[in-house]
Amino acid sequence: MASTLILLRHGQSTWNLENRFTGWHDVPLTEQGTSEAAEAGRLMAADGILPTTSHTSLLQRAILTHHLALHAMERLWIPVRRHWRLNERHYGALQGLNKKETTARHGEQQVFQWRRSYDVPPPACEPDNPFHPRQDERYRTLPDDVLPASECLRDVVVRTLPYWHDAIVPELMRGETVLVVAHGNSLRALVKHLDGISDEDIAALNIPTGVPLLYRFDDRFDVTERRYLGDADAAARKAAEVAAQAR
Amino acid sequence: MASTLILLRHGQSTWNLENRFTGWHDVPLTEQGTSEAAEAGRLMAADGILPTTSHTSLLQRAILTHHLALHAMERLWIPVRRHWRLNERHYGALQGLNKKETTARHGEQQVFQWRRSYDVPPPACEPDNPFHPRQDERYRTLPDDVLPASECLRDVVVRTLPYWHDAIVPELMRGETVLVVAHGNSLRALVKHLDGISDEDIAALNIPTGVPLLYRFDDRFDVTERRYLGDADAAARKAAEVAAQAR
Repeated sequence: MASTLILLRHGQSTWNLENRFTGWHDVPLTEQGTSEAAEAGRLMAADGILPTTSHTSLLQRAILTHHLALHAMERLWIPVRRHWRLNERHYGALQGLNKKETTARHGEQQVFQWRRSYDVPPPACEPDNPFHPRQDERYRTLPDDVLPASECLRDVVVRTLPYWHDAIVPELMRGETVLVVAHGNSLRALVKHLDGISDEDIAALNIPTGVPLLYRFDDRFDVTERRYLGDADAAARKAAEVAAQAR
Repeated sequence: MASTLILLRHGQSTWNLENRFTGWHDVPLTEQGTSEAAEAGRLMAADGILPTTSHTSLLQRAILTHHLALHAMERLWIPVRRHWRLNERHYGALQGLNKKETTARHGEQQVFQWRRSYDVPPPACEPDNPFHPRQDERYRTLPDDVLPASECLRDVVVRTLPYWHDAIVPELMRGETVLVVAHGNSLRALVKHLDGISDEDIAALNIPTGVPLLYRFDDRFDVTERRYLGDADAAARKAAEVAAQAR
């Protein structure tokens, strides 16, 4: 059955604004992020894209963005599932550090590798570090070998795709319009899979905050349409800002 | 396994404030309702009551209250299911009418019967009435013989209890702390069942907005504790205000 997917990266968070590595740290939205989220809802409504079901990560910046976007389009009533597999990449020992300071300390090349290499994770977070997910009730049921202490993008692909295949694809297969509100890297993992992007080329892909990315599928599940909603120039400009964060 | 249930009636809505029969009409919260919702979250947190899973109706005043309460206690990440069986009583042709004006027109006795009799529904809403749920996408999958056009409290009990038994009780049975955010009458239906209140006595029961009602169950599913969180006098005063609305 023909179906529609909307990928939405959360609006600006306080640590986006402070230019700090966030990962699984559960920071709130800024005022700008709040506006971006509501605007994302208005963009969907203006385009006649009406989600019938939805998914978020377990992090409040995604949950708040989802809530504000659906509130703006008066669709708070649609079902929602939240799952850690949609969380942002775990940034390991870098979580909480300023991106520019980290660059000054470790060099641009090392930080670019941590940020954008496909298979080199940052140094791991120690179990007694307050940023280690073992300290967090929401991950209490996950065994140590599943719970990440640091992730490269390949790790994110590996833990995100089971949720894609098991939870999201079956909804698309029955013709739903599915909204997924998540994070820069969990969405890059999905887009890599959907667009067949190579391990090398994914480094150059940046997803802007708060701009719905639409996919339409035909009844053979081939992609028939892929575009950002709203002003294409604005989406490109915001993606370029993401790329420049460590400079 | 021992478990905990929290029933929470949504904060004040715009039509609560305007003293109109609301039913399934999807009105927003007032500023007071927004504060009540966050305060409900603070009351739960202060009492150490931490929901691990949750349920709402399909109406935004319950969904917003749920969101604001969990936001206040930094637990937005818990699972949530939304279901029409937790909706407010459908008030039929009375929806949208002012309670005092309706009393002036039909007499106090008739209005009291419509509001509080167990088995006399108000006049039904016609299918072409914009308040008829057939006009609303969120109920599109429900057949005509399930979709209410007016309900007495007995009707609400009959359609709410399947959700209680099928969705909520199994969670309590495995020891969860379950938050249910719903409405004056869907919660009266649950409380009638939980407390074994007779069809006659339920007329006198009023549930205040925004005050969490706690039940604890032992491992035989007997109730071991039942109380409103926070200031007991405030809860009683708010319940009395509900009773006085048609005067």
